[in-house]
Amino acid sequence: MASPEIDALTQILSRLPGLGPRSARRVVLHLLKRRETALGPLVAALQAVEARLVTCGICGNIDTHDPCSVCADPRRDPASLCVVEEVADLWALDGKRLFAGRFHVLGGRLSALEGVRPEDLGIESLVSRVSGGGFREVVLAMNATLEGQTTMHYLADRLAGLDVSVTMLAHGLPVGGELDFMDEGTLAMALRARKPVA
Amino acid sequence: MASPEIDALTQILSRLPGLGPRSARRVVLHLLKRRETALGPLVAALQAVEARLVTCGICGNIDTHDPCSVCADPRRDPASLCVVEEVADLWALDGKRLFAGRFHVLGGRLSALEGVRPEDLGIESLVSRVSGGGFREVVLAMNATLEGQTTMHYLADRLAGLDVSVTMLAHGLPVGGELDFMDEGTLAMALRARKPVA
Repeated sequence: MASPEIDALTQILSRLPGLGPRSARRVVLHLLKRRETALGPLVAALQAVEARLVTCGICGNIDTHDPCSVCADPRRDPASLCVVEEVADLWALDGKRLFAGRFHVLGGRLSALEGVRPEDLGIESLVSRVSGGGFREVVLAMNATLEGQTTMHYLADRLAGLDVSVTMLAHGLPVGGELDFMDEGTLAMALRARKPVA
Repeated sequence: MASPEIDALTQILSRLPGLGPRSARRVVLHLLKRRETALGPLVAALQAVEARLVTCGICGNIDTHDPCSVCADPRRDPASLCVVEEVADLWALDGKRLFAGRFHVLGGRLSALEGVRPEDLGIESLVSRVSGGGFREVVLAMNATLEGQTTMHYLADRLAGLDVSVTMLAHGLPVGGELDFMDEGTLAMALRARKPVA
């Protein structure tokens, strides 16, 4: 069809999440037709990121600085720590400015199936970070999955002896959730965690 | 949220067709976590294309060579020419190996609304290319839109005096099309163009 270079670019793009062969071709055409306004800026932006990519030595976030922009931000509450499984979770909670403290990225979740053990995750660094003192609260913001909750309980055990309040995210109906469309697990959880009407 | 470089990359990606803020963030995370296997190859592939991007002097295709891979391919029928509005159309017809002749890209369609006149499109180059002789058939493969069809009739007029057979794409029900779901225009077209059952 096209030249080998264009084919190679289309293939690489089609492997990105959310893109397939058709949408990758659309993106390539868009870029080819806008060399100055789209292709050039994209190359420059990718190179700028690639050249400086580092993992934050404090929290495990991926950024172009170490410490990362989150850890370096002085306006954040230094006594509040949110533990997440992945960088994506950090971005989700932080991008919407939902949590204004510090973060700690585990880099995954405990999984017997996938053979992920505690020593494969950033758990020792979390424990020593919290042991170092200065934290009032640690929020365990794991996914509401079996493995996420297993990880959450493991972390709660590990942090139990320390002088810090350990909390977890609430579970229940999502905002706008209709009972009709909820799975049994969510319904059971929402029932079990029911509260008196204020 | 993230560093300025990462934010800039996310913004640029979110302006690509088919991507939005959320999916751009997913792509960025994917790239950041796979520096060697995804980010590096993408940068290299984009640079390879950017460095050599040219518009084919014969047909108007965008490629990394001039003449482009389509024009340079000796296995294609040199006497059959397919005229399309955009490079995307060339790729659509060629990518599925539907048309094995040569192509000519107009770079748009006539449009009174958008002020696109014949001299804004690759029409003179088409007429002189066909006048040069050697073509048996010219397929006018315009979109089945008002502007595409206007362009098609204009081209048919311009090519009328030349010693070449000028054809157009068939219009009617798309394959798998159910009458129930078709718009009136398609149904009217399919009725008007009805043929005896073979």
